[in-house]
Amino acid sequence: MRSLRFIDGKLELLDQRKLPHQTVWLTCRDAFDVAQAIRDMVVRGAPAIATSAAYGLAMEASQARDLGDLDLQAHLGQAIEALLQSRPTAVNLRWAMTRMTQALKPEVRGKVSIEDALLTEAKAIDSEDIATNQAIGHSGLSLFAGQTGLQVLTHCNTGSLATSGYGTALGVIRSLHESGQLQSVWVDETRPYLQGARLTTYELQEENIPYQLITDSTAAHVMQQGWVDAVIVGADRIARNGDTANKIGTYSLAVLCHYHQVPFYVAAPWSTFDLELDSGQAIPIETRSGEEVTRMGDTLLAAVGATALHVAFDVTPHELITGIVTERGVITHPDTQSITLLTSERDREELH
Amino acid sequence: MRSLRFIDGKLELLDQRKLPHQTVWLTCRDAFDVAQAIRDMVVRGAPAIATSAAYGLAMEASQARDLGDLDLQAHLGQAIEALLQSRPTAVNLRWAMTRMTQALKPEVRGKVSIEDALLTEAKAIDSEDIATNQAIGHSGLSLFAGQTGLQVLTHCNTGSLATSGYGTALGVIRSLHESGQLQSVWVDETRPYLQGARLTTYELQEENIPYQLITDSTAAHVMQQGWVDAVIVGADRIARNGDTANKIGTYSLAVLCHYHQVPFYVAAPWSTFDLELDSGQAIPIETRSGEEVTRMGDTLLAAVGATALHVAFDVTPHELITGIVTERGVITHPDTQSITLLTSERDREELH
Repeated sequence: MRSLRFIDGKLELLDQRKLPHQTVWLTCRDAFDVAQAIRDMVVRGAPAIATSAAYGLAMEASQARDLGDLDLQAHLGQAIEALLQSRPTAVNLRWAMTRMTQALKPEVRGKVSIEDALLTEAKAIDSEDIATNQAIGHSGLSLFAGQTGLQVLTHCNTGSLATSGYGTALGVIRSLHESGQLQSVWVDETRPYLQGARLTTYELQEENIPYQLITDSTAAHVMQQGWVDAVIVGADRIARNGDTANKIGTYSLAVLCHYHQVPFYVAAPWSTFDLELDSGQAIPIETRSGEEVTRMGDTLLAAVGATALHVAFDVTPHELITGIVTERGVITHPDTQSITLLTSERDREELH
Repeated sequence: MRSLRFIDGKLELLDQRKLPHQTVWLTCRDAFDVAQAIRDMVVRGAPAIATSAAYGLAMEASQARDLGDLDLQAHLGQAIEALLQSRPTAVNLRWAMTRMTQALKPEVRGKVSIEDALLTEAKAIDSEDIATNQAIGHSGLSLFAGQTGLQVLTHCNTGSLATSGYGTALGVIRSLHESGQLQSVWVDETRPYLQGARLTTYELQEENIPYQLITDSTAAHVMQQGWVDAVIVGADRIARNGDTANKIGTYSLAVLCHYHQVPFYVAAPWSTFDLELDSGQAIPIETRSGEEVTRMGDTLLAAVGATALHVAFDVTPHELITGIVTERGVITHPDTQSITLLTSERDREELH
């Protein structure tokens, strides 16, 4: 199962708004097509968005190859801006754009054309993401050493559809299933877009991983019954102190875990960390149309004229996070100090 | 706005599954029609169910009036059993049946026929409920003395549609609006039946009370922002120690309030107390079909074959409840002792 494929110089995105009942591939030909697809939620999940945007920029370079190098770079700057604005909360997108910008520099690409250099970099981002997720999955196993019969609760979709493949939080769950330690998964339906109901149940079913779907507000009840051993979620952006922005409802789960003494884990690639931000207070939170709450397709769910607040993400303070699972290892009780320990030389250089 | 009306010896129920977009009245002719309507969620809300069931029993007595008194009483016993089983969690239904059983006793009704005695009692239950709710609303004002610009969050629907009129938690909110202390209401959509989205927005709009609809998992975020001064919910059954069963998601809100130091209030008539139960552990919790989570009307929301757990209610332990607002006054920090203080002689007699 893949959320995207690059064929004959074009990016095809699996339209996730239509899943699981229709399999429709939408073709993007340039960066602006991709930006629109991200805004419209055709593709979602921080890592999948980053990969899509990288291919988008590579296609843009190919489309505009007749411009001279200088004009092309200026044009690509506009394309990057459009892509960055398509999803303000997820930082992986910016990370991908930084990599792409680096790759097109003459001192980096040498005699290779901008077009070819960007395509090579996009493909690298794509394939590295799968390897990264597998490493996250493996890394997560250390948290559950010696435990079996685990009941794990997750939110939204963080699987193959949210990444280039395997998944982040769902990657850890997949690894627990492969190691025989998993009993069952509680899947939050994740209103309003129902990524849990539509996408996570679909992925788990394909993998024959046992699960039960629940409404988001049932999570507290199943924790109260003692039926949850851990909560694992993904992330859209993690500040230097560990504060984590993720799909709305994540913060709610973190508070519930705190009260019920259930471990609360975040699984995310290193590219989700935004080391420039001291804390989560600086993370921009996307507010979307209230109609996405009051309507489902053509069906009005509320009174005519009903007004709704649709905040798409929330921020979980690091004190509520038991551990962050990355491809570099697990950061337990994340804070500025523990995160800095995993910061590489290269990360530090990029910051300056 | 009324959820039910008794016309020409028949009970008409406003079909709440079709609100707010269609106004369809469903006619019930006997107790078994009413039991079916309760099971099917045509009518919901603990007080409205109690009133409907009372009229159901009165109609049954009228239908079967040709039986002798002894046979009629046996027949009514079966009807009561069917009504009690239609909604196991709400206790108001049992309370209404106890009143009706009392009313048909020869020493109580004297020379009045069983049929007439039951109809008189059903009408009394109906009209008393409105007065009770107004008293609850008034009683709730004492919690907010001197406060203005209040932002209150509520769950499910506890208004005119859930009662004989005015409402319990929504009655308190209505009183706060009338007294000019209310700024706005946060309305949890309340999955899976969306009583908040469909019914509460509709009632608030009719009353010109400002509100914003949110998905259930957004409640934590708005509390984190400091945008919630209090949470007020209804109840389906309250044990002698104050533990409260209510719509799934209520317990989640109580935990979130505890963490954010937001007062958490329950508003309910005295008929919602089940003094026979020591604690909430003994409250029967209704589990309904998982299809009510995986489907919305004809639309499948999840993967084909997806399995869901649909627990319709949860239990909030009394330690998490700041106060219970009743028509007899407010019980702050409810526990067995404070609830016993409000228990009348008559309540005690009924227990023995």
